[in-house]
Amino acid sequence: MDAPPPIVLTTDFGLNDPYVGIMKGVILNINPRAVIADLTHQVQPQNLRQAAFVLGSSFRFFPSNSIHVAVVDPGVGTERRAILLLTPEGRFLAPDNGVLSQVLSNRLESPTDRPGLVPIPGGCTVYQLTNPQYWLHPMSNTFHGRDIFAPVAAHLSLGVSPDAIGSPVSGLVWLPGSMPSYQSGYIQGEVIYIDHFGNLITNIPGQQLAGFSKLQVQIKGRRITRLSQTFHDGDMRDNPNLLALIGSHGHLEIAVRDGSAAITLGAGPGEPVLVYTDEGRMTKDER
Amino acid sequence: MDAPPPIVLTTDFGLNDPYVGIMKGVILNINPRAVIADLTHQVQPQNLRQAAFVLGSSFRFFPSNSIHVAVVDPGVGTERRAILLLTPEGRFLAPDNGVLSQVLSNRLESPTDRPGLVPIPGGCTVYQLTNPQYWLHPMSNTFHGRDIFAPVAAHLSLGVSPDAIGSPVSGLVWLPGSMPSYQSGYIQGEVIYIDHFGNLITNIPGQQLAGFSKLQVQIKGRRITRLSQTFHDGDMRDNPNLLALIGSHGHLEIAVRDGSAAITLGAGPGEPVLVYTDEGRMTKDER
Amino acid sequence: MDAPPPIVLTTDFGLNDPYVGIMKGVILNINPRAVIADLTHQVQPQNLRQAAFVLGSSFRFFPSNSIHVAVVDPGVGTERRAILLLTPEGRFLAPDNGVLSQVLSNRLESPTDRPGLVPIPGGCTVYQLTNPQYWLHPMSNTFHGRDIFAPVAAHLSLGVSPDAIGSPVSGLVWLPGSMPSYQSGYIQGEVIYIDHFGNLITNIPGQQLAGFSKLQVQIKGRRITRLSQTFHDGDMRDNPNLLALIGSHGHLEIAVRDGSAAITLGAGPGEPVLVYTDEGRMTKDER
Repeated sequence: MDAPPPIVLTTDFGLNDPYVGIMKGVILNINPRAVIADLTHQVQPQNLRQAAFVLGSSFRFFPSNSIHVAVVDPGVGTERRAILLLTPEGRFLAPDNGVLSQVLSNRLESPTDRPGLVPIPGGCTVYQLTNPQYWLHPMSNTFHGRDIFAPVAAHLSLGVSPDAIGSPVSGLVWLPGSMPSYQSGYIQGEVIYIDHFGNLITNIPGQQLAGFSKLQVQIKGRRITRLSQTFHDGDMRDNPNLLALIGSHGHLEIAVRDGSAAITLGAGPGEPVLVYTDEGRMTKDER
Repeated sequence: MDAPPPIVLTTDFGLNDPYVGIMKGVILNINPRAVIADLTHQVQPQNLRQAAFVLGSSFRFFPSNSIHVAVVDPGVGTERRAILLLTPEGRFLAPDNGVLSQVLSNRLESPTDRPGLVPIPGGCTVYQLTNPQYWLHPMSNTFHGRDIFAPVAAHLSLGVSPDAIGSPVSGLVWLPGSMPSYQSGYIQGEVIYIDHFGNLITNIPGQQLAGFSKLQVQIKGRRITRLSQTFHDGDMRDNPNLLALIGSHGHLEIAVRDGSAAITLGAGPGEPVLVYTDEGRMTKDER
Repeated sequence: MDAPPPIVLTTDFGLNDPYVGIMKGVILNINPRAVIADLTHQVQPQNLRQAAFVLGSSFRFFPSNSIHVAVVDPGVGTERRAILLLTPEGRFLAPDNGVLSQVLSNRLESPTDRPGLVPIPGGCTVYQLTNPQYWLHPMSNTFHGRDIFAPVAAHLSLGVSPDAIGSPVSGLVWLPGSMPSYQSGYIQGEVIYIDHFGNLITNIPGQQLAGFSKLQVQIKGRRITRLSQTFHDGDMRDNPNLLALIGSHGHLEIAVRDGSAAITLGAGPGEPVLVYTDEGRMTKDER
């Protein structure tokens, strides 16, 4: 007997309340052999962009038959659709509010920077969940994680076909992630995520920095004059402990050796980060 | 081979310490195929009423063969009994301190508002855990979650009979939940739980409000003049973002659209909530 | 078919970020039937001594075929080795930075109080993880939990031999735990861990106190004149609610009945604790 596909939960429900546990109860009621994993439940309440980033930078590490359930759902009970997105790298159940945007971003030919409905990229399919036969009843207007997404995930894990649970649709909501702007000689980005260690993860993809033999990172008036390889490998000039590296998300990350960059710099999401790639523009004494 | 019944853990142990993990180790040592789910471990330390509410409003979403383990146990090591409660909707292992009261409340003919021993309702059975053969040894006086409840749950999940692990008893400890008082023309309740989103969950059951075409909710001097259907559907008069609805617990809930009612109102557990159901008693300008 | 051995995770990653979830995804990708349990992810960031204590006082409650993965790894990406320690009571994957010291402490003939390389005790084997075939690629320098430890754990759970994943080595890094000093007539110890309830766990092993009919515990100028059996069983003289007992870790623990000793005493890790075992040295009025 094949192992069941993992059901992976990402929510903003936190861990104090029984909400996540209840979703697991609903799943186990339908599929007692379900394998359930938590990605995180600590997305900032109703922060769709954060949820999209967390899911988008994580889903590739799960099996490609995984059923991801992403419930950050400020519009629960309103007209917003509930959808199933099928991709070659995973299946995704979520409200159609943009929370799946970073799952799709690599697949869109030219991601727009305006929110709105986008066509479904090649190789993917989207279904609107329309068949109440697979939902929990009586159904609430306030907890579709329990009443729609969890039971549909459990039925999918048992092999129920997408065609049974809904109808194909031709577009889904796109919420653009924060994108750096590329100027002549420098890249202007920003901090988009702070992790538990106080590392500042920026929106600047590591591959954009690959070709440069010299670069200079500026944040909060501090300069970092090279990319480190590890958290131990600080810039040994005037910032002995402040460092920049390409982190495990694949993005430029600012860190403090044995400390918290968020606290040391007093920086949070939205903090501007400049990367000078043109020697002429770098601060003189650092060239 | 049948799937094993889920073992569902509810404690006040928090997630910083290894205590919950240790209980899982003990369970897996006895039943390596056990399916373990967490309801929550963030019950406020030793808050039996909160634990009873959380468990009572959640257990029905789990399979009816589930083995719930509820360890909020200020009297651990004292004379308080350790019990197994069998109901048609689930099995429950817990200290006999009232933590199972809300599991039973619908089954009691006339729940009393005084704490004490109550007879076991029809269809249910209670065993006192008396057989040390199913416990972990050497046994501590301070961690029966590890030494008694976890191993007994694991043995039950393997099919060990309740008669083997203990002896039937005729009553268990009842801890009354907070109950609203029904007056002529109004209901006086209170906030009993604040969730991660800052929603204020009251002790007023939704079905008590079903029959009224008009009602008025008062909390902290603010008035809400209708029940909303969703968190987006605010009262559009003088409280554009404050709303009242029947939440996913089935209780009257006070919320703030895209915000925290707990912070906005400065309200916490125990905060009085009045619901006027008689037009004559409502504030005039809101009729 | 045998049940797979549990993979037990202990990290300082916290629960806000997707890091722990990603490790589970990597494991499930390799072994879809893996059984994964969390010990805790809330070790204080990069606190190796705390991680060593938590793991050392917990691992015996898990099955002896468990694969423990301990990732508290301030030196990730540097020259520090990644190791697999095999013991009769469990298998342990970790950076070779001392985090496994308390797993070994009972096995060392004379544990030294200086950090450094120690020979491997009898009955145990240590492998350095050297075979990149069992790692995730492309590999980062900053997240070996994802790229080395999780995939190697998954392969071990499928039965891959230690000889395939690495090469035996002859020593590993020892990080001494805090040890009490035994003087004539008294023991000088300290608080090493504060749990969620505010209980102060000391470094004084319970068995050291077993033989004494009278003893006196001093902390923060307060005296406790006997050992309690339960958290309810306070010292009934001038500290009605302050109590000392041998806690579930097997160590002397200071607690406050129905409260937090950490808050009541204003004490934290490192706080000195004295135990007088010689009547002549005890405070007179408490004899």
